[in-house]
Amino acid sequence: MTKIACVNGRFLPENEASISIFDRGFLFGDGIYEAISVVNSKLIDVEPHLARLDRSLDAVSMRAPYSHAEIIDLLRELVKQNNFEEGLLYFQVTRGVAPRAFHFPPDDVSSSFIAFTLPMALIDRKETRQGVKLISIEEQRWKRRDIKSIGLLPQCLGKQAAVEQGCYEALMVEDGMVTEGTSSSAYIIKDNTLITRPLSPAILPGVTRRAMMELARQDNINIDERAFSLQEAYQADEACITAASNFVMPVTEIDGYKIGNGKPGPVVKRLLKLYIEEALKTAI
Amino acid sequence: MTKIACVNGRFLPENEASISIFDRGFLFGDGIYEAISVVNSKLIDVEPHLARLDRSLDAVSMRAPYSHAEIIDLLRELVKQNNFEEGLLYFQVTRGVAPRAFHFPPDDVSSSFIAFTLPMALIDRKETRQGVKLISIEEQRWKRRDIKSIGLLPQCLGKQAAVEQGCYEALMVEDGMVTEGTSSSAYIIKDNTLITRPLSPAILPGVTRRAMMELARQDNINIDERAFSLQEAYQADEACITAASNFVMPVTEIDGYKIGNGKPGPVVKRLLKLYIEEALKTAI
Repeated sequence: MTKIACVNGRFLPENEASISIFDRGFLFGDGIYEAISVVNSKLIDVEPHLARLDRSLDAVSMRAPYSHAEIIDLLRELVKQNNFEEGLLYFQVTRGVAPRAFHFPPDDVSSSFIAFTLPMALIDRKETRQGVKLISIEEQRWKRRDIKSIGLLPQCLGKQAAVEQGCYEALMVEDGMVTEGTSSSAYIIKDNTLITRPLSPAILPGVTRRAMMELARQDNINIDERAFSLQEAYQADEACITAASNFVMPVTEIDGYKIGNGKPGPVVKRLLKLYIEEALKTAI
Repeated sequence: MTKIACVNGRFLPENEASISIFDRGFLFGDGIYEAISVVNSKLIDVEPHLARLDRSLDAVSMRAPYSHAEIIDLLRELVKQNNFEEGLLYFQVTRGVAPRAFHFPPDDVSSSFIAFTLPMALIDRKETRQGVKLISIEEQRWKRRDIKSIGLLPQCLGKQAAVEQGCYEALMVEDGMVTEGTSSSAYIIKDNTLITRPLSPAILPGVTRRAMMELARQDNINIDERAFSLQEAYQADEACITAASNFVMPVTEIDGYKIGNGKPGPVVKRLLKLYIEEALKTAI
């Protein structure tokens, strides 16, 4: 079956889905994106994703071309047209099509919207059962990592470095302290305490992070929101990363150092179980 | 006349020039660009621009889809089809079209190439005669600013801030020291010495910078390649910025502080004259 994408409200085969070369997303990376996980054809954490979209758009003075309700309608139509059951719904807003100039285009230039599906297993994955290996790399991104912009070249280079070393993800390290993964939030567990960097411009405010942290709180898991060092991570009892594309992913090795006993640990497995239950229950 | 653009070697009207929404330039800002100035329909500093393209591509493990000779042929064809006399030839290479994943696509995915013309006055401009006003902003870019990537959101935000304050460009400041403009190299002149930040990952290796510095050396102008502070810039005798789109642009005000007597000074005017003469002489 030919997959269907959405371009500015039109639904068309992915191989016909195109935008102008003068779209500012293509010339400047001048755009914002989100990815929502889908299970059983239902959307997970929709409102926090749309709230974060607004937050990112506000931060760069961009406007979405559609309301939240309209975006949800477009995403649901995409699910329907693709018979989409499990994976990610990706969508992005860019600052529209205009002659190339760094400053913003006139107000009558409307922003662009595209969306497509990325089928992938989320609930039942070998990676989640076995845990994944990470590498660490130097943090090289810009200073506003709380803005979910499409300017992702440093993240691409980091992920590629991980893949070339047979690993799943790269942790970025700044001044000795872990910021986050290239496309995930990062956590360690030490002495039954869940440790993760507090929100700031240094990291993305993860939607899955937010949901999992709330579940951890309700489950009376000790939480310490503070930056942790790479050395601490090597010596942690357990570790995990979260993202819409990962849910809660156990980490069993970092830079070749085995984490705990090298298998997914009890706290991370508990958090994954809680997250999946909640996601299935609240998906719409 | 409808302007003509080049997309992967095809020439077509700009309003029909499109790329796939799955191009990595559009989804990740995963691309490299160059802009070459054109005067009298001839290209200026072609070889250094192509050398810098290669340098940027190498730094991100990307390949150009064409040889230097083929790129020059495509650019010349663009000049011809547009009866293009003066302005910028813009071209960019992106890592091709592939299902969205951070890591690089398989080797058989070829990179994308697009190019278009940006008509503008370069030799005779009111801005060059009168000088321009700048603002300063905090440096927010990633750490590899020597790579000319299309991830330009911080630069767009900076330029927009400048425009909103009635200014021409924004100088970016890191730890009190000027790095460069959002799309230009930055210089001050103090006591007849031309001062500019030395090349490093902190700034782009400007092609116009390189050409102008060589002319300054030949003209026995004193040069001090070192970082300078924003305070020093306020108190400079003269200041200027360079870029393919600016040649040598006199700066007469920064953050409301008048530079020198508030008019283009003799050293900057001399450098501009030398640059234009050399550009016209060596354009091909």
